[in-house]
Amino acid sequence: MKTEILKYLKETKEYLSGQELCERLGVSRTAVWKVIRQLQEEGYQIEAVRNRGYRLTTSGDVLTEAELKSLLHTARAGQTLVILKETDSTNNYARKLADQGAADGTLVLAEQQTAGKGRRGRNWTSPSGTGIWMSLLLRPEFAPAHASMLTLVAAMAVKQGIAEITGLDCQIKWPNDIVLNGKKICGILTEMSTEEDSIRHVVIGIGINVNIESFPEELRPKATSLLLEAEQRFLRAPLVEAVLRSWETYYETYQSTLDMSLLKEEYNRSLASRGQEVKVLSPKGDYTGVSQGINDGGELLVEMPDGELREVMSGEVSVRGIYGYV
Amino acid sequence: MKTEILKYLKETKEYLSGQELCERLGVSRTAVWKVIRQLQEEGYQIEAVRNRGYRLTTSGDVLTEAELKSLLHTARAGQTLVILKETDSTNNYARKLADQGAADGTLVLAEQQTAGKGRRGRNWTSPSGTGIWMSLLLRPEFAPAHASMLTLVAAMAVKQGIAEITGLDCQIKWPNDIVLNGKKICGILTEMSTEEDSIRHVVIGIGINVNIESFPEELRPKATSLLLEAEQRFLRAPLVEAVLRSWETYYETYQSTLDMSLLKEEYNRSLASRGQEVKVLSPKGDYTGVSQGINDGGELLVEMPDGELREVMSGEVSVRGIYGYV
Repeated sequence: MKTEILKYLKETKEYLSGQELCERLGVSRTAVWKVIRQLQEEGYQIEAVRNRGYRLTTSGDVLTEAELKSLLHTARAGQTLVILKETDSTNNYARKLADQGAADGTLVLAEQQTAGKGRRGRNWTSPSGTGIWMSLLLRPEFAPAHASMLTLVAAMAVKQGIAEITGLDCQIKWPNDIVLNGKKICGILTEMSTEEDSIRHVVIGIGINVNIESFPEELRPKATSLLLEAEQRFLRAPLVEAVLRSWETYYETYQSTLDMSLLKEEYNRSLASRGQEVKVLSPKGDYTGVSQGINDGGELLVEMPDGELREVMSGEVSVRGIYGYV
Repeated sequence: MKTEILKYLKETKEYLSGQELCERLGVSRTAVWKVIRQLQEEGYQIEAVRNRGYRLTTSGDVLTEAELKSLLHTARAGQTLVILKETDSTNNYARKLADQGAADGTLVLAEQQTAGKGRRGRNWTSPSGTGIWMSLLLRPEFAPAHASMLTLVAAMAVKQGIAEITGLDCQIKWPNDIVLNGKKICGILTEMSTEEDSIRHVVIGIGINVNIESFPEELRPKATSLLLEAEQRFLRAPLVEAVLRSWETYYETYQSTLDMSLLKEEYNRSLASRGQEVKVLSPKGDYTGVSQGINDGGELLVEMPDGELREVMSGEVSVRGIYGYV
């Protein structure tokens, strides 16, 4: 009922009478009033005026199941929602749910992560209420070899979602970060569990710095938020919705070929440092070359000074732009 | 100390005096006596004769840390040992240990599995004390794409270990079973956890039916044990040792190329139904062709009636011999 009342409130610009709500939902005035109170407690600004009814003045930055469900238009992504006040890492939580049989498309969101994970055991700072810390559980039927590219697909969805909601034009730092003015605004961490040559599950963790006002000093040179870049606050739920909607579109395209052939052109247009020198940090020694964008397999092509084109796999290396960002 | 006393007992054909043991180990007679009692309780037949000392008359079928450590000659596999009376599945247990940071080479063994796993969620019957139910944890540094072939490498190690200890010449049913006279004697289940393009861990589960005297009626047409085939009992610990030793040899060869190029000839010599008709059960429809053995990538080559050579990936299909076994 909460989701329905929210939807009616959002659809109605003017006052929505309590009487009308009762009739539409077939419940008592007290029941409606109780839900309105709950919504107000969750952060919605709802005016209640005698003889006129209820009106949503502004949507607070509310990340609840009712709020998200009132917005979501996806087929699968987020259709099962788990929203937590706090967890160590939404990826860990989603992996546990996966082991218990959670469905394809299950989305785990937390207001705060106490041990958010980045690549290679690094931390991801995830303060309370100011970011989107979420993990999407997938159970694809394709072979494990195709899963590593899902990070690239997710990066495209995040870039697109951010553009739609904020107007900001981010770049993708191959393979798994979204950057703005050379600083990280989003990181993606994809984990997979396989059995023989089959995928048991994939968990795509997405962390977006939305309304973070300031970062610890050591992070300032390399991290930023949508608030800091756009100098305005954004509601998180519509951004989650936009990212998930974009995800489904890109994911469908990806699944039609199981490689980046149809997506690489768009990906490469968003690629940070493309055509510029990058430093590849490899266990077998570092080297410098010019980033030429990704190939169909999602590998980064790096042109060496002698013209040799190296295919860089994401598992083996870090790539740094020589200019612009770390 | 237990491992050392066991080693001395095994090395000495005649009686080993308590006095000598005390001196070698620098401990009291009482301490030695206590360990001897423990070993007897674990199933070792140890004679104690006044004025002569201790003698191991027969090694019982003991699967303990001390027993295995007294036999193992591996560099890594089994150097960390976890031996359980009972667990749901050694693979599940090993995966949990892996998440807690357990080392490469950690081996989990259980006397009994209450929910042993086969491929695609099937069960694996694992009665108490009569089989080898074990899982080997690996933390390889190569890319996830190379991990699916580890099942094939493990199958070679099991076949070799069984041959060495029992003289039985098993065949490999691609990709993950060992068969004898058309019936399963061993199943292998490889699971993997990845982060982006890196392997976090691989768990190779190996179940060997050693001294199982009889199977439930529904399993009789397709399962057998070393006891039933050889009409004699075998000690499990030496078989574990032989399999792990073979594993390390084959694994080293595999790692030198990260494909089956150096191993496929030997693999194909052991391959059940090679050169015979097999039925491939694929989600896109079943078909029949002649098995031509594996290629460098570990895929099974199946020759169609029109001469077309199909490369079959293990994740997608089941392959059944038309004759001989299910």
